[in-house]
Amino acid sequence: MKPRRNIKLVLGFDGTAYHGWQIQRRHRTVQGELRKAIRLITGEQTNPFGSGRTDAGTHARAFVASFETCCTIPARNLVRALNSNLPPDIRVLSARDVPPDFHARLSAGSKVYRYQIYRGSVIPPHLAREHFHYPYAIDVGIMMRAAQLFEGAHDFASFAAKGGKRESTVRHIFSCQLKSAGHRLTLTVEGNGFLHHMVRNMAGTLLELGSGLMTWDEFQALFERRDRTLAGFTAPARGLILLRVRY
Amino acid sequence: MKPRRNIKLVLGFDGTAYHGWQIQRRHRTVQGELRKAIRLITGEQTNPFGSGRTDAGTHARAFVASFETCCTIPARNLVRALNSNLPPDIRVLSARDVPPDFHARLSAGSKVYRYQIYRGSVIPPHLAREHFHYPYAIDVGIMMRAAQLFEGAHDFASFAAKGGKRESTVRHIFSCQLKSAGHRLTLTVEGNGFLHHMVRNMAGTLLELGSGLMTWDEFQALFERRDRTLAGFTAPARGLILLRVRY
Repeated sequence: MKPRRNIKLVLGFDGTAYHGWQIQRRHRTVQGELRKAIRLITGEQTNPFGSGRTDAGTHARAFVASFETCCTIPARNLVRALNSNLPPDIRVLSARDVPPDFHARLSAGSKVYRYQIYRGSVIPPHLAREHFHYPYAIDVGIMMRAAQLFEGAHDFASFAAKGGKRESTVRHIFSCQLKSAGHRLTLTVEGNGFLHHMVRNMAGTLLELGSGLMTWDEFQALFERRDRTLAGFTAPARGLILLRVRY
Repeated sequence: MKPRRNIKLVLGFDGTAYHGWQIQRRHRTVQGELRKAIRLITGEQTNPFGSGRTDAGTHARAFVASFETCCTIPARNLVRALNSNLPPDIRVLSARDVPPDFHARLSAGSKVYRYQIYRGSVIPPHLAREHFHYPYAIDVGIMMRAAQLFEGAHDFASFAAKGGKRESTVRHIFSCQLKSAGHRLTLTVEGNGFLHHMVRNMAGTLLELGSGLMTWDEFQALFERRDRTLAGFTAPARGLILLRVRY
């Protein structure tokens, strides 16, 4: 019997055409495409683990997946073999053998997300796929100060999509920075974990604060109130990018 | 009778879906889409001038077009009106009234193009639309030195697509720089004018030199030899971006 291997893949994808990572019956998903490609080259029916669910339309620069296989294809050849069987908007950037206890999600130490906003009146086509277009007057200074308040361990219940069942809504945010360059505004957040829609809700809430639709006191109270209806809107998925996962 | 106005537009477009700027009978072109949008909002059949032809698949950050109209819509409102009638991969970034003698092509003083190459073994999806993937060993140093030789007034006959009838193949290149950052290589060229396929042929020739398929002496001789068959291949259109046009 061939030995069982555990493979770690790093994927880049343009999420525009996908309903997120997780397999769904009626929609194209990244996990679904990856499973199909693995079956085509190994003949095995696997269920690759992902470093986390991503929303429909969200992009990734370095999403991590892992799967077990008995195939004997060297890891470096897996990259080319998988890419030959994946659509061009999903690419395997690297593949390597990892110990059996490695799990893309459970072993993850932290994840870094970026949310991208374009403020100019007309969005240039080359930025449209990965930016949320928000051409309204905002106070960037207050948004920058507020972004820093996300740092640390907080109860993010006000920023979690409704309907999730989970033990704890406390997450530790190691860093959260809002940067402004020309018409572009980028929110970069690193944390030990993220609730469903959390980064998009953080971005939407900062925009409501910056637009004057929410006061500074209301913003500060969100951590204690634990009420999703009080935070800002969910900014669209197209502006969200998973930058990397650290192990 | 309403006074005749001359309007200057700055356009950004993702050229992937278009057969370049110039109207063609059977293909979608940027000029064709713009003419349609102008007709829809002014009722006038115009032939907008462009700052130059662009190849099928080439992109633009700030292509300049101009057209005459008798409509009375203020220039700033034209931006929104035209964008409502253009596909999202073509955007009017600005519009303004200019003197009657302004002509997008004839008035242009210089143009800046960038050619983008990605050298890593797998191209990340977010770079695929605007980079030429060239994952082969190259000597970047020799390419950088060669790029500088393009600067100045030269006869670019060896770099012009065959079949063009023109008075002169001499063009003045004000600056030509090859920069390397990680796996990305960008060639930025500013000149008073460009022959058909000239920047793509310059990029392909630099790659042949860097790959060792052409010697330094052969490269240097290209200017004198005036022979298209001696220069390198035509690098693909997707890596080419018109950055700006100066007047």
